[in-house]
Amino acid sequence: MSAEKRTLRVGMLGCGVVGSEVARLMIANQQDLAARSGAGLEIVKIGIRNLARAHAGIDPQLFTTDLESIVTDPSIDLVIEVMGGIEPARRLILTAMENGKAVVTANKALLAKHGAELFHASDEADVDFYYEAAVAGAIPILRPLAESLVGDRVQRVMGIINGTTNYILTKMYETGASFDSALKEAQSLGYAEADPTADIESFDAAAKAAILAGLAFHTQVTDEDVYREGITHITADDVWVAKEMGFVIKLLAIAEANETHGSEEETISVRVHPTMIPKTHPLASVREAFNAVFVQCESAGELMFYGRGAGGTPTASAILGDLVAVARNRIEGSLGPTETDYADLDIAPMGATKTRYLIRLEVADIPGVLAAVATTVANNGVSILTVRQDGRGLDAELTVLTHIATEAALSSTVSQLAELDSVKDVLSVIRVEGLNS
Amino acid sequence: MSAEKRTLRVGMLGCGVVGSEVARLMIANQQDLAARSGAGLEIVKIGIRNLARAHAGIDPQLFTTDLESIVTDPSIDLVIEVMGGIEPARRLILTAMENGKAVVTANKALLAKHGAELFHASDEADVDFYYEAAVAGAIPILRPLAESLVGDRVQRVMGIINGTTNYILTKMYETGASFDSALKEAQSLGYAEADPTADIESFDAAAKAAILAGLAFHTQVTDEDVYREGITHITADDVWVAKEMGFVIKLLAIAEANETHGSEEETISVRVHPTMIPKTHPLASVREAFNAVFVQCESAGELMFYGRGAGGTPTASAILGDLVAVARNRIEGSLGPTETDYADLDIAPMGATKTRYLIRLEVADIPGVLAAVATTVANNGVSILTVRQDGRGLDAELTVLTHIATEAALSSTVSQLAELDSVKDVLSVIRVEGLNS
Repeated sequence: MSAEKRTLRVGMLGCGVVGSEVARLMIANQQDLAARSGAGLEIVKIGIRNLARAHAGIDPQLFTTDLESIVTDPSIDLVIEVMGGIEPARRLILTAMENGKAVVTANKALLAKHGAELFHASDEADVDFYYEAAVAGAIPILRPLAESLVGDRVQRVMGIINGTTNYILTKMYETGASFDSALKEAQSLGYAEADPTADIESFDAAAKAAILAGLAFHTQVTDEDVYREGITHITADDVWVAKEMGFVIKLLAIAEANETHGSEEETISVRVHPTMIPKTHPLASVREAFNAVFVQCESAGELMFYGRGAGGTPTASAILGDLVAVARNRIEGSLGPTETDYADLDIAPMGATKTRYLIRLEVADIPGVLAAVATTVANNGVSILTVRQDGRGLDAELTVLTHIATEAALSSTVSQLAELDSVKDVLSVIRVEGLNS
Repeated sequence: MSAEKRTLRVGMLGCGVVGSEVARLMIANQQDLAARSGAGLEIVKIGIRNLARAHAGIDPQLFTTDLESIVTDPSIDLVIEVMGGIEPARRLILTAMENGKAVVTANKALLAKHGAELFHASDEADVDFYYEAAVAGAIPILRPLAESLVGDRVQRVMGIINGTTNYILTKMYETGASFDSALKEAQSLGYAEADPTADIESFDAAAKAAILAGLAFHTQVTDEDVYREGITHITADDVWVAKEMGFVIKLLAIAEANETHGSEEETISVRVHPTMIPKTHPLASVREAFNAVFVQCESAGELMFYGRGAGGTPTASAILGDLVAVARNRIEGSLGPTETDYADLDIAPMGATKTRYLIRLEVADIPGVLAAVATTVANNGVSILTVRQDGRGLDAELTVLTHIATEAALSSTVSQLAELDSVKDVLSVIRVEGLNS
């Protein structure tokens, strides 16, 4: 344990919102970081695209536009990648590993597409590859999943892992706002981008879901394996009905092990979609731009990890945690645990996924409607948990909450309901989680 | 990374509720544990006091009453200590370390008293010493504090870390029950012991608070450094008044860095006491026997870790997580991060601790009472945030919520209030946390 005190040289790729915070904190907390990692940590090169952009508080001499020179520099020990995007980030990380450098990244898109390749490359090169900042920003979730819960068996992960959509859904729930006006408010406050597609269509959450699922189930999962649905179709009425029934609508990323029967192979499902959960569920009180990941384990039971999912400083905190870990390992001459996909489970098609559903129907307010709806639902092998009928003028609204059914059974139920004469419109179909039994 | 597949031999000290679950899970999940740790993990000896006690599902040949033989057996690589108590646990762990064995423990009482000695001994012996299960059962909190947040600066930790008292306070809040009847219910459900002293007088929470504080602030903290107050004096009226004002009463363990001015040395405060927090605070919705630890960091912002704080299986999950970690390290020939108290901060006396207070007074319902109370409070340099007066017959109740003040100022305020002619009784004084500004 008496490692000689030395200095590790750090190169950084990118210097945007997150990168400039990393640089600032590394300079401000130099002594603490040294005490905790057993080595001085000196940032020696920062690769950016445009030297003209100002970076207050950072020595201008550190900057270079030659990013390749960072990942091949023999004097650099550790590389932080915060440039984002697939290329050239992927190529630069691979080159850094080949050159014996430990790598810390926050790049969720890259991990969700090429995680397996990067894990393999770090393994081949005998270097650390850490990425806590890629999912749920500052919340330590990947390390607990990969390390603390390693002696347990994860059954299910449900996460609010996109702050923008959680902000929008919180406003819709608390003020009755429409999706459009909640989105505008989120944009004006900087919680949503000018082009909000990646958030509101759940591309961002799907990438993070792939990373979480891979770690939780020791299986290779890419973003293309994730069923993805956005929140743009959620109406103020949907939110109101949910609230009336004691539920909240959240965009959840869900990864779960499916129950097996007899000789069936174990499979997992990974999906991101708007979800109704009871108000009493721990995830229900996660408001505004906060993130939280709820984990159900065989032995540990229910766990939840809550915190800020984005922002320069919180994300920088996660990166520095990883940086200290890889620095300690390097000083010790050891390596952190590597990802393994030893379980190698199959990913079930969405049609086989089982959950409960809330179906909102606009129906003619005439006798026999409920019977027709109930018959159609039953004919598809789906059981009804509750039905609620609200009259409004000549029309009525029928709200059907089902028992657990497969997506396939639900789809055929909904298309047959839509064809009934007494059903004027299928207003919405929203999945329901977090109910017991 | 191509570590040779070998088997690590595990000895266990104790086989009660937690130990028997550890043994059961090690046998049931043998293959998973081997895949995750890179080594077979075989439990080869279990030390107990009485061989006559039956342990279903565990090979009787594993048991011995010669505990010393486990910690000195050269063929044993890892030792799990789940016997609890100070001695002989302390001596056995030290002997195990001297004999080159990595140690995993769940023993909070021992860590809170002799943590520094044990950390030092593991460091001297170059062996791992892990203890995630000692605080908040299954919730991964020590590892995130020690590792994930190592690049950040913790400002404050507030935790619900005793399930028994949280169950009692939840029942009092939700049903209006008295402390005595809520305690009886907790006892009948097995949430409280026949002798509940360790829980309701906060000895258990104080031990865990010492461990949390030490990790969060890189400083030696023992249970004797922790200010400790139980929940036995909390009345149904206190809970009712809190509820009316939008608060919940929880038993919180609080460790915080105190603000420094000028050349003052940085200090920390560590305390456990009943605390009013706003209903909207993330800790407020932690119900029944669940635990949660809320952490405020300079960069990461607010984080919360939630889950089951006790019980054989949840605690066993945390132990197995540690076991896999130390097994991986041993196979790699490395060691996990060691605790350091490099910051070595002073612990401030309770009188210097600052918080807000709720003071409930029974007063004579006569003019001038409020003026007398307000003057007394102001004379002690304490500011009032709100006052609320409720008449009841000839008497009235005055509820004073203060701004932030020191414990010393509060104490003198309260004793002077008690001496006022118009004050018949000081009904209660409860600290208030979680208010902004």
